[in-house]
Amino acid sequence: MKAYTQMSKEELKALQAELEGAYEEAKAKNLALDMSRGKPAAAQLDLSMPMLSVLDEKSVLKSENGTDCRNYGVLDGIPEVKQLMADVLETKPENVIVYGNSSLNIMYDTVARSMIHGVCGETPWCKLDKVKFLCPVPGYDRHFAITEQFGIEMINIPMSEDGPDMDLVEKYVNTDAAVKGIWCVPKYSNPQGVSYSDETVRRFANLKPAAKDFRIYWDNAYCVHHIYDDKQDVLLNILEECEKAGNPDMVYQFASTSKITFPGSGVAALASSAANIADIKKKMTVQTIGHDKINQLRHVKFLKDAKGVAAHMKKQADIIRPKFEAVLQVLEKELGGLEIASWTNPNGGYFVSFEALEGCAKEIVAKCKEAGVVMTGAGATFPYGKDPKDSNIRIAPTLPTPEELAQAADLFVLCVKLVSVNKLLENA
Amino acid sequence: MKAYTQMSKEELKALQAELEGAYEEAKAKNLALDMSRGKPAAAQLDLSMPMLSVLDEKSVLKSENGTDCRNYGVLDGIPEVKQLMADVLETKPENVIVYGNSSLNIMYDTVARSMIHGVCGETPWCKLDKVKFLCPVPGYDRHFAITEQFGIEMINIPMSEDGPDMDLVEKYVNTDAAVKGIWCVPKYSNPQGVSYSDETVRRFANLKPAAKDFRIYWDNAYCVHHIYDDKQDVLLNILEECEKAGNPDMVYQFASTSKITFPGSGVAALASSAANIADIKKKMTVQTIGHDKINQLRHVKFLKDAKGVAAHMKKQADIIRPKFEAVLQVLEKELGGLEIASWTNPNGGYFVSFEALEGCAKEIVAKCKEAGVVMTGAGATFPYGKDPKDSNIRIAPTLPTPEELAQAADLFVLCVKLVSVNKLLENA
Repeated sequence: MKAYTQMSKEELKALQAELEGAYEEAKAKNLALDMSRGKPAAAQLDLSMPMLSVLDEKSVLKSENGTDCRNYGVLDGIPEVKQLMADVLETKPENVIVYGNSSLNIMYDTVARSMIHGVCGETPWCKLDKVKFLCPVPGYDRHFAITEQFGIEMINIPMSEDGPDMDLVEKYVNTDAAVKGIWCVPKYSNPQGVSYSDETVRRFANLKPAAKDFRIYWDNAYCVHHIYDDKQDVLLNILEECEKAGNPDMVYQFASTSKITFPGSGVAALASSAANIADIKKKMTVQTIGHDKINQLRHVKFLKDAKGVAAHMKKQADIIRPKFEAVLQVLEKELGGLEIASWTNPNGGYFVSFEALEGCAKEIVAKCKEAGVVMTGAGATFPYGKDPKDSNIRIAPTLPTPEELAQAADLFVLCVKLVSVNKLLENA
Repeated sequence: MKAYTQMSKEELKALQAELEGAYEEAKAKNLALDMSRGKPAAAQLDLSMPMLSVLDEKSVLKSENGTDCRNYGVLDGIPEVKQLMADVLETKPENVIVYGNSSLNIMYDTVARSMIHGVCGETPWCKLDKVKFLCPVPGYDRHFAITEQFGIEMINIPMSEDGPDMDLVEKYVNTDAAVKGIWCVPKYSNPQGVSYSDETVRRFANLKPAAKDFRIYWDNAYCVHHIYDDKQDVLLNILEECEKAGNPDMVYQFASTSKITFPGSGVAALASSAANIADIKKKMTVQTIGHDKINQLRHVKFLKDAKGVAAHMKKQADIIRPKFEAVLQVLEKELGGLEIASWTNPNGGYFVSFEALEGCAKEIVAKCKEAGVVMTGAGATFPYGKDPKDSNIRIAPTLPTPEELAQAADLFVLCVKLVSVNKLLENA
């Protein structure tokens, strides 16, 4: 197929007519499909159903240290669930707090606590004129929603295949004391699916922040979420690297079992230095008596250890992989060589990041919606919902069935072609 | 027995010697007992064990509206759990948000949100010079810990058998715009076990707050926690009364199943007006995607409805009642008529409030501890841990076994007698 960018006006016009016809036909199918959110499919959830039987009315609900998991108490999680989450995050149990069901909630609370009480004795952010966060883009909309709600100024940092632009990160963090944090999804990033290179992680660990209370918000949401058996990204351990670099307190790491067992009924964890853990627990003790220890026990009985988690995630990958492959095949087959788009080929995570021609993303998403396929809103992957180039679209292939996915991807590429042709004609 | 207050110095001295001997004997027993926290006993927790079998790997985890409870979503709780908690709180499901496992956490978050974002569009409290809360005393230490952590000034309001001193409440709330809230445990109050009278509830509903963002923090922690079948307090519905009085938005009501099913593994709820619910959900949507819907479903399958809850609470009462009776009998038998103490006789809840002679509470608690019986810290029932009269002690009889309780109560009254005699001799 000839690249659209090489076509004459006449060729583009003929193509436009053809694509418009195809789009009208597609609309007539009255599709109702959703590629908008990173939700596991029912088949993935089925894998965790046995977890609901590991505890029953005859079980002894004692933690390994004798705690009755049915009663009040235990702020930071029972020992065995701290061990499990430490294994998953490659750290020690004493560096871990296990919470309730949501790592997003932990991140929100961490920002809220910094606003009201400050970080490790520093001035509460609500007393400062200006607080800024760096936001690698495209990124995760729910991160940006948190910082936006707290009135924190967000600064875009471009992403490459190695992670955020570290020259820019260093410039901001090392010189501007108003910069208090950076949102990172370091492994199989949302939405690109890229993993930070060793050099990127080391440069993070060696930052010299102007603000004492600067923290890296290391959302390791996809730490064990591989797609392939033979192609798995390996991420350098940020806690260790920070310690080596003399910055032991610079990172909050977050993770959960939401996409391991059940979203909404999993366990979530924060891992950090001893000093940060102590600072957080001191405040937390007023917020709650403790989280759901029975569910913590249930998770340990079901997943057992890091090996158990890996075995379970292999089953998840077997369900997810064909979906990614189906979408990527359609993209390659239909858009390869047309010079109107590029996209990522991740080894893990939940998303493909798609780059359309500048100024086309909103229109593509609108056209998809008109024909019954819901995509993540264009702009959602940027702070304030504003994609400066209006070119990025996040594709989430996990929720639909493979059949639905084929239909949705076909419609998507059709919309990409049509909107791109329109744009090229506009500019011709 | 002759009242201690009527005794001569000589009589008191003879008594002192006798009590000191008894105390030394008691110490030699090396007791290790705990009447400090309102925790259910293991026998109470056993009642809820069947809840762990109502869902298993074969269950269909769909909510009544078709939602897959295993996946992401549903900010305010699945419909059937909203109905259940609405039944318990005698309101409508649309006035309820069901959260995770902790009503304390909801209260903390509610104060935190008011600090950072303000209440229904009013100025965030962190931007104000001064924020005050009224604190009926003696009261619940964890309430006071929240307001203390946020730097909110706490004002003591004396409690009577009808609830807080409403003359004082009206004076503060209706004239001082810095007063933004009041902590209430309106039914079987912590620690008195008294329930607010109808007149008290109506006077609450008819407040004319100087601050638009004044809210009553109505912690209905013991709403269904009766001790007796034939003596049950009935509390007027505050949401209805506020609506009648033209103050529909003045109350946040809190409750949980912590002391119905499992503390730490229950569900918690907030009930309020449509305007407040909308205000809260708007902020919450950034904080979390949703709470544990599987556990919500588990609770509905087990408790079913208000009738099911009542039947379950009757079984709890059967376990708790003998413990309260045991403690109250010891108090009456050993301290009745001595004019050195008074205490409450609650129909529900988790506590007995004990009033010693002025200046004796700390010493009594210390003497108990020295002999191996842990009581709630003296002063804990007051803001900043400061009981101005040093006279109040909270007794929590639910956790120990009846045998342990008899021993603990015996030691307690011995310490009360000894410290009282010492005090009377000091003043003689």
